[in-house]
Amino acid sequence: MPEPATPSPCPRVVSGMRPTGKLHLGNYMGALANWVKLQDRYDCYFFIADWHALTTDYADPSQIAPNTVEVMLDYLAAGLDPDRSVLFLQSRVKQHSELFLDLAMISPLGWLERVPSYKEMQENLAHKDLTTYGFLGYPVLMAADILLYQPDFVPVGQDQQAHVELTREIARRFNFFFPSGGRKPRDAGKHPDIRPVAIAMWEADQVLPEPKVLLTPSPKLPGTDGRKMSKSYGNTILLSDPEPVVRQKLKTMVTDPARVRRTDPGDPDKCPVGDLHKVFSTPETMAKVYDGCRSAGIGCIECKSWAADSLVKILEPIQQRRASFTEDHAKEILKAGSLRAAARAEQTMIEVRNAMQMTLTTVSGI
Amino acid sequence: MPEPATPSPCPRVVSGMRPTGKLHLGNYMGALANWVKLQDRYDCYFFIADWHALTTDYADPSQIAPNTVEVMLDYLAAGLDPDRSVLFLQSRVKQHSELFLDLAMISPLGWLERVPSYKEMQENLAHKDLTTYGFLGYPVLMAADILLYQPDFVPVGQDQQAHVELTREIARRFNFFFPSGGRKPRDAGKHPDIRPVAIAMWEADQVLPEPKVLLTPSPKLPGTDGRKMSKSYGNTILLSDPEPVVRQKLKTMVTDPARVRRTDPGDPDKCPVGDLHKVFSTPETMAKVYDGCRSAGIGCIECKSWAADSLVKILEPIQQRRASFTEDHAKEILKAGSLRAAARAEQTMIEVRNAMQMTLTTVSGI
Repeated sequence: MPEPATPSPCPRVVSGMRPTGKLHLGNYMGALANWVKLQDRYDCYFFIADWHALTTDYADPSQIAPNTVEVMLDYLAAGLDPDRSVLFLQSRVKQHSELFLDLAMISPLGWLERVPSYKEMQENLAHKDLTTYGFLGYPVLMAADILLYQPDFVPVGQDQQAHVELTREIARRFNFFFPSGGRKPRDAGKHPDIRPVAIAMWEADQVLPEPKVLLTPSPKLPGTDGRKMSKSYGNTILLSDPEPVVRQKLKTMVTDPARVRRTDPGDPDKCPVGDLHKVFSTPETMAKVYDGCRSAGIGCIECKSWAADSLVKILEPIQQRRASFTEDHAKEILKAGSLRAAARAEQTMIEVRNAMQMTLTTVSGI
Repeated sequence: MPEPATPSPCPRVVSGMRPTGKLHLGNYMGALANWVKLQDRYDCYFFIADWHALTTDYADPSQIAPNTVEVMLDYLAAGLDPDRSVLFLQSRVKQHSELFLDLAMISPLGWLERVPSYKEMQENLAHKDLTTYGFLGYPVLMAADILLYQPDFVPVGQDQQAHVELTREIARRFNFFFPSGGRKPRDAGKHPDIRPVAIAMWEADQVLPEPKVLLTPSPKLPGTDGRKMSKSYGNTILLSDPEPVVRQKLKTMVTDPARVRRTDPGDPDKCPVGDLHKVFSTPETMAKVYDGCRSAGIGCIECKSWAADSLVKILEPIQQRRASFTEDHAKEILKAGSLRAAARAEQTMIEVRNAMQMTLTTVSGI
């Protein structure tokens, strides 16, 4: 019996992103900015989900590796700190695939076929052939990604809670079939000197505890066309966009459609630029925006330049940090983080293999 | 770029069995006896497929580990030689799960749903819930098991050719999406001194070559009830059955139904015991059987005792070898073999990861 994992001093969280390219303000406000804050209070595992990228990009995986480096640079730029968080690459921690295979065995097909995003993504990405076994298994892989670190919480926005719920259900089913004392009755018979207290402790623990949702803020963030900021809409402002690019993108941004002429009064509550102000501007600027827009005292160009000022103020420290890292840094940090993640993952897998009785070594030494 | 695998002096074969318990004469004649002979001419990898056992036995995996030891003892008893063959346990070679996940990405769901044995096994095992993601993925796991060792051949009986065909199709699809020179164009650009010959060689190689079927004899072997010998029918003669048990099982074996009385002539071609003789008895005994049965010169009891003699003669050296191994031997051999298998599997996975471009390290040094 291996040493039990050293209990972590604070609760653990796990989350990750697919390597789709340079991250934008939507990724930042919806996830990354929250993760940075979590580092103060949680034992943090953040990863780049390159295997998940393969579920949709298997026909051309050439961008996955370069995108991985970009995402890692954005992680570091946003303030994820490799000394405080374990930052790793999914495919470098082979235990993800092992737990995926183990969880596959107990995952009902119906659960997967009924995941709402399954049909939805197939329709959205109709130009790609997503009728693959791997794409159907997306939620199983996600469950493995999470449960492998036995986390207390998964930080997600409102819209992603369903995914965590499925992970919890898979964990529950695993713990039902494979209780952590799976070998106990037999081994207790073989080891008459087994300590009852140890057994009781063992039984109390589940191998894959159900993680809870840690609901994190994900403010409504419009892209330059007024729709939700998303890479697939081509309406993003990147964390790495230089100031002139940010100002230029803001200039082309749509505004309150009711404000046609400079002299028409507008409504910031119906204006995507107003939404940006609400997220990024100070109360003072906000007051000036409401006042000036509703009275037609300011034009959209002026209002947008204030929004750009606010964005630039957010982006400046991010871009400064990014400038201090090279691609090689990013790769080295990912490699080192992946080793740390694998060591933690292996602790879980030892428990998983014992519970599933997939081991040649009889349990002893408790 | 890692060193290419040392070319093996002889063609490679891979095969495996599920750990369902002690092996019987049907397993021996249909597979094991062939494998033993293959050792003389092939680079052999034989494994115990414990992850496959989970696809049907996830609700109670308690017998998988003990059955694994029994199967390994039967492998050794039959004459598989750890010095000549790599004998290993699937779940101890984690690369099986990694390649399973990779192949999942490209495996069309329709291919899996159309596998004839899929619906068939679900019906045969109606008392088990086999509507799981893992059970549907059985052929993907099997493809990973085989392709991981880049074998030239897969030794199978007539009835298993379809499985190898699906493995070949998955390999073909992998090689289409992920040619071994997947990184070549980009890297060729980066390395102007790249040698054209090296590129040509590289392109000629496919990462997962399609293995061919090596059709091995699988004689019709009846169980004691006249149906095909199979564990699920409870009609088997085990490789480890002691002589008195073999003789007792033969005594209860069904015979030519037309031969009701001792004085009725019989037909060995319509008699399950006759089928046993054809497989195991000498031409001399065979002649005595045909003669005596057709003329009612011998009774079934005598004929069965001759069949038992023939079986015992086959089983004797097997059981002698088995007696020379302990359970601990079996485990140690499996552990050592699994390390060897993992080393070979890792060579393949390095090529797989490069071809899929799932690596942070740029290819260099060719």
